Amino acid sequence: MEYTQQLEFHFDRIDKEAIPYLSVDCIIFGFHENQLKVLLVRWKNTEEWSLPGGFIHKTESVDDSAQRVLEERTGLRNIFLRQFQTFGASVRYDTADTWKRLNLPIDHFRWTNRTISIGYYALVDFSRVNPTPDFMTEACQWWDVDMVPPLLFDHNDIIDSALKTLRIQLNWQPIGYNLLPEKFTMPELQKLYETILGRTLDPRNFQKKILGLEILDRLKERRRGGAHRSPYLYSFNKEQYEAALQEGSLMFL
Amino acid sequence: MEYTQQLEFHFDRIDKEAIPYLSVDCIIFGFHENQLKVLLVRWKNTEEWSLPGGFIHKTESVDDSAQRVLEERTGLRNIFLRQFQTFGASVRYDTADTWKRLNLPIDHFRWTNRTISIGYYALVDFSRVNPTPDFMTEACQWWDVDMVPPLLFDHNDIIDSALKTLRIQLNWQPIGYNLLPEKFTMPELQKLYETILGRTLDPRNFQKKILGLEILDRLKERRRGGAHRSPYLYSFNKEQYEAALQEGSLMFL
Repeated sequence: MEYTQQLEFHFDRIDKEAIPYLSVDCIIFGFHENQLKVLLVRWKNTEEWSLPGGFIHKTESVDDSAQRVLEERTGLRNIFLRQFQTFGASVRYDTADTWKRLNLPIDHFRWTNRTISIGYYALVDFSRVNPTPDFMTEACQWWDVDMVPPLLFDHNDIIDSALKTLRIQLNWQPIGYNLLPEKFTMPELQKLYETILGRTLDPRNFQKKILGLEILDRLKERRRGGAHRSPYLYSFNKEQYEAALQEGSLMFL
Repeated sequence: MEYTQQLEFHFDRIDKEAIPYLSVDCIIFGFHENQLKVLLVRWKNTEEWSLPGGFIHKTESVDDSAQRVLEERTGLRNIFLRQFQTFGASVRYDTADTWKRLNLPIDHFRWTNRTISIGYYALVDFSRVNPTPDFMTEACQWWDVDMVPPLLFDHNDIIDSALKTLRIQLNWQPIGYNLLPEKFTMPELQKLYETILGRTLDPRNFQKKILGLEILDRLKERRRGGAHRSPYLYSFNKEQYEAALQEGSLMFL
């Protein structure tokens, strides 16, 4: 089917099946090579990027629609996903300019005169994700959070809000657990905290504090092949981590 | 105008002016006589209570619609108001049973087959509120949060979520500042923290900790007319309180 036809078919289905005025947007965070990353899509026939998002079916819960978008983009199910904010300004962005940038071959205006977006952030294990564009996009790619280009819609602001949420929730959501691979070194864990908090931490202090929380197991195995020393590997002790989160005793700020 | 006519007029306007499938619900908290309280409305011709809520006009921001509901119910403007969660389950409550309990003289069903509700909590100075029912309700009243009756819709769950949010946000939102009158005693402040956290705190420890934060001014004035001693009065030092919130240094948990 030709792209224009596909789009018409798609928007006809949205008209029938989706809740008008509403959308979900997903901020999918990953952590790789000491960088916090976010998954973005590039729209077909453009150089314009945005967050992955979608509409909510009339019979579908809002949480399920976010899960569906995530699964379509990453191939993963049962991801750590949290609703964090609904973006409801009466004018969120310059609609005319946005449709020009989107360069769509059909008029999508009736659908997007105003959209209220429910924002979800997801924390995924970078190595398990298979970024997948959909039929309206031609690339799906990780970006360093501090290198994100000017996005479509108000998506730069939405990423800023999600980062602010991560910073606040670092103490009572299992953020480290979901972003790191099963085994990691102390510098990797510290770098994750530093990236989210947006400031450097003293290594000795960090190690003392985090070990004091008794949520890590030090493994017998060490990281091999490093240029210098072979650092110890750690993994989260899931039970103790969950207990600490429940108690709210992971205060680090 | 007769009630049935009023309702028809009202729902006709909603059909034209409001965003379908969406609503806002407001959890308005106050603190009085050492009790955390929540403002509820009783629906006309029933003994059924719910949170105050409303619809979102097509040209209105979601925040503004919550402010509007608050102002209509309390007479107050510029209230401390925070969006905290969007309730988007595909089936939030038993619709048929709910409409039976609501006992409305016209069929409101087309509007409420499914509603996604954006929840806001508000913190108000109890003494300044003038609870005001609207034309669909005949009472607007404060309830102790631990005495709330079985509410319409899923509003008991929404209150629980709001309380959980307060508990978490006690450390980085000006919750005490907004719930207490300008001058208060140390036991009153402690009681507020205890009520929100849902557990008792040691008075000596509490006083030491909270004074250590340097966010309170002790006034020369004392509370007069008490049965026993005349306790000191305190007020928040707004500047230092804001600075502490920014730093995230109000950790109490």
